[in-house]
Amino acid sequence: MHPPLSHCERCGGHLRFVVPEGDNLKRHVCRPCGHIHYVNPRVVTGAICEWEGRILLCRRGIEPRLGYWTLPAGFLELGESCSEGARRETWEEARAEVEMGPLFSFVNVLYIGQIHMFYRARMTSPHFETTPESTELMLVDEADVPWDELAFATVRYTLQHYFADRARGDYGLHTEDFTQFPPRPAGPPPQRPGAPGEAPR
Amino acid sequence: MHPPLSHCERCGGHLRFVVPEGDNLKRHVCRPCGHIHYVNPRVVTGAICEWEGRILLCRRGIEPRLGYWTLPAGFLELGESCSEGARRETWEEARAEVEMGPLFSFVNVLYIGQIHMFYRARMTSPHFETTPESTELMLVDEADVPWDELAFATVRYTLQHYFADRARGDYGLHTEDFTQFPPRPAGPPPQRPGAPGEAPR
Repeated sequence: MHPPLSHCERCGGHLRFVVPEGDNLKRHVCRPCGHIHYVNPRVVTGAICEWEGRILLCRRGIEPRLGYWTLPAGFLELGESCSEGARRETWEEARAEVEMGPLFSFVNVLYIGQIHMFYRARMTSPHFETTPESTELMLVDEADVPWDELAFATVRYTLQHYFADRARGDYGLHTEDFTQFPPRPAGPPPQRPGAPGEAPR
Repeated sequence: MHPPLSHCERCGGHLRFVVPEGDNLKRHVCRPCGHIHYVNPRVVTGAICEWEGRILLCRRGIEPRLGYWTLPAGFLELGESCSEGARRETWEEARAEVEMGPLFSFVNVLYIGQIHMFYRARMTSPHFETTPESTELMLVDEADVPWDELAFATVRYTLQHYFADRARGDYGLHTEDFTQFPPRPAGPPPQRPGAPGEAPR
């Protein structure tokens, strides 16, 4: 899971992958200057955006999982809160404006060193637009969710719990550890309806 | 908040701090090879460890905030969940074993690019030991918490809400954004009782 580091980010010297003194895990340590390169899990933050009972989905225009459907989400940036990050990603991927609600799902995605968090959110209008990151967008009822064409296991997990909680009228915080890469059938990404043979851009 | 990066971690080339094409934030980009060094917030995970109503506090034996009291906590590592990380830190800092409970506090510490999370936890025995990271440990009642000698604002926030929730008999999830470095009086760290003038090791 460690990235392929070979040079020191501070002095350019060559790195060794060893256990530093007083530590118990291997780190990339600079041979000349001793600087230790710590690598930690990254946070992906996203939103379940609702408008009149329907949920906003984005068809991915970029890798990974190009052509599959997702909730708006992306890497948390320095200086922003997880909730602000989810709002920003919703704007960047779908040009939709939302009022942010509470944290809804929290998944440790152990096999890729990530934490995926999704917040409940309410769209302030039904407006959305395609963007460089999303080739197609839609507001869907539960019955119309393309479950077989979802981009990520954490999106599936989040939507399943969201609809279940909504039906009960009681929203919780759902936490889970995903320990194994989900099985995914080989093959091309899903086609856009009405555009047979055309790859999503 | 960006760390002082100057060389590419992949090729050793010199970095420029510029907005990459298709992005809207400055990143450290390698001039020769084009590799982009993304820097994202790090997660600190910790535990509120209870034994017969008292809470486990650790006096820090390392910087930052050497000599001040904290809950066991530290940086989340690759391949572990936030809850597992809190249990590991409790063992590393206090040699205490715990049953982990639910997430209790979640603070975006914006001025240092960190997220601090604390979990409720129950000690499985009253055992603890000093460690290289903790010069002194204690189980304290609410009335004996050294509020003026706590190491971090997120520890104070967490303990205040914990005791309030416990008194009400209803534990929630407490989230907050800390936007400014807390004011801290200049001066030496607190002394250990009975050891005047002696610096905590």
